[in-house]
Amino acid sequence: MEIFLDCLPCLLRQGLEASRLATDRVDLQNKIMEDSIQILSRYKDYRCSPDLCRSMHQAVKKHTGLSDPYAEIKARDIRAAKAILPDLFAFLKSKQNSLYWALKIAATGNIIDSAVNHNADMIKGIETELEKEFSVCDLALFEEKLKTAKNVLIIADNAGETVFDRVLAERLAPLDIIYAVRSEPTINDATMEDARASGLADVATIVSTGCSAPGAILDDCSEAFLNLFDSADVVISTGQGNYEAVSGCGKPAFFLLKAKCPIISQKLGVDLNGYVFKYI
Amino acid sequence: MEIFLDCLPCLLRQGLEASRLATDRVDLQNKIMEDSIQILSRYKDYRCSPDLCRSMHQAVKKHTGLSDPYAEIKARDIRAAKAILPDLFAFLKSKQNSLYWALKIAATGNIIDSAVNHNADMIKGIETELEKEFSVCDLALFEEKLKTAKNVLIIADNAGETVFDRVLAERLAPLDIIYAVRSEPTINDATMEDARASGLADVATIVSTGCSAPGAILDDCSEAFLNLFDSADVVISTGQGNYEAVSGCGKPAFFLLKAKCPIISQKLGVDLNGYVFKYI
Repeated sequence: MEIFLDCLPCLLRQGLEASRLATDRVDLQNKIMEDSIQILSRYKDYRCSPDLCRSMHQAVKKHTGLSDPYAEIKARDIRAAKAILPDLFAFLKSKQNSLYWALKIAATGNIIDSAVNHNADMIKGIETELEKEFSVCDLALFEEKLKTAKNVLIIADNAGETVFDRVLAERLAPLDIIYAVRSEPTINDATMEDARASGLADVATIVSTGCSAPGAILDDCSEAFLNLFDSADVVISTGQGNYEAVSGCGKPAFFLLKAKCPIISQKLGVDLNGYVFKYI
Repeated sequence: MEIFLDCLPCLLRQGLEASRLATDRVDLQNKIMEDSIQILSRYKDYRCSPDLCRSMHQAVKKHTGLSDPYAEIKARDIRAAKAILPDLFAFLKSKQNSLYWALKIAATGNIIDSAVNHNADMIKGIETELEKEFSVCDLALFEEKLKTAKNVLIIADNAGETVFDRVLAERLAPLDIIYAVRSEPTINDATMEDARASGLADVATIVSTGCSAPGAILDDCSEAFLNLFDSADVVISTGQGNYEAVSGCGKPAFFLLKAKCPIISQKLGVDLNGYVFKYI
């Protein structure tokens, strides 16, 4: 998906938040911002927002000298999510349509996004968010496809959210679940290590997309991942970054996300902050 | 006042809003944004936000070919404000402390700012805003200074707000009121023409600051204005732009504004959106 003009100030704001999450040193924050503005000035050279985000995150890595500047934040988010995992299972048990609500739990995990809202108090308000219905939900089509499916490929988004995805993965068993993560740390997105720490290895085969952007840009993904993508009976792409990177690639997928920005919500035809499970 | 890192994405967002207010042509909006990012990349060369804003607005002028891209918006805001002028006078009449509430009316005019919130429905909610008390109000000091004052210099902010300032100017009569505006159109800031259209000529002497930035940067102001500034018995600087440009210049002034951004509100020690009348 193209980069919209509205994305530019938003990406710069995220760059500033990212610099502050990664370091307390104002001189480094200044350097990261200077690099970010340079990156932004070449916005037309980038294929989508995750592509540009990756460059900004490389500036964070460069100036902080950290290979995973959000390691602590990701660990914190995973810990917090794991602490409420029993509540998530209890919530699911209380619902009649467990497939719908397992999807909804995974979508709700999308609120744990340090990149967009690092002040999010994960626990606070989580119940309210869980109870919200999808604005769009292609459940019937999903059920139809599951009837003949042997496997499901889930493209992961942020660390922490991974724990919520685990509930969905368990609900989809005994199908083979392939859980695809970023090839290396980028913002607070889930890597192999984060997925393992979230317990995904118990319910899925964790693979790398081969892409280091915060969104699986297919042109940058590994041959191995592209084969998995092509042969998957059902693909679930989670989060905004993956939606921006994957949608329009030619192969349809179910996009599971919370529409956290006006552009994305407009694209999906839902209200801002609406939950979406849409086959495109 | 220095430019803070938080200002950078906000200035870019304002640049985008400005481009859209000035033209419907997306190609021109793109060009304005490209120039705006270039300007932003040199943010350390600018003395304050209004200085940088001026450059962005010059990009709007350059690409639209319009000398006053907000002429219509300013005329609309002035018309709308004039339509409620009788209500403003009635509101003032209903209050016991007319000096306090005349100041408050002028400060409330600060919500009419197409640059920050171009969707603001001026009439809607105006009464609620009017009734809000100042978070900080150096009224006693102001009254003290007025006892011996022969003149008051008001540094104007946006068009539309000018009409609200008229209420204050009338309340301050029979003191000589000097009303200083931008030297040329910049965003939706008030020029000589806008001040006249707002009826200020009836109650004040309208002068130009000699500065074309959306904030009276004293180093850029005319000798004539600086003489007025130095000899004024009382100076009232209205709006955020003037606060950013004038505060810390060495000569104290009363800063009258609504703190519409987190940085400004923090600087002034008030809550976001708090009303301020502060002698600094």
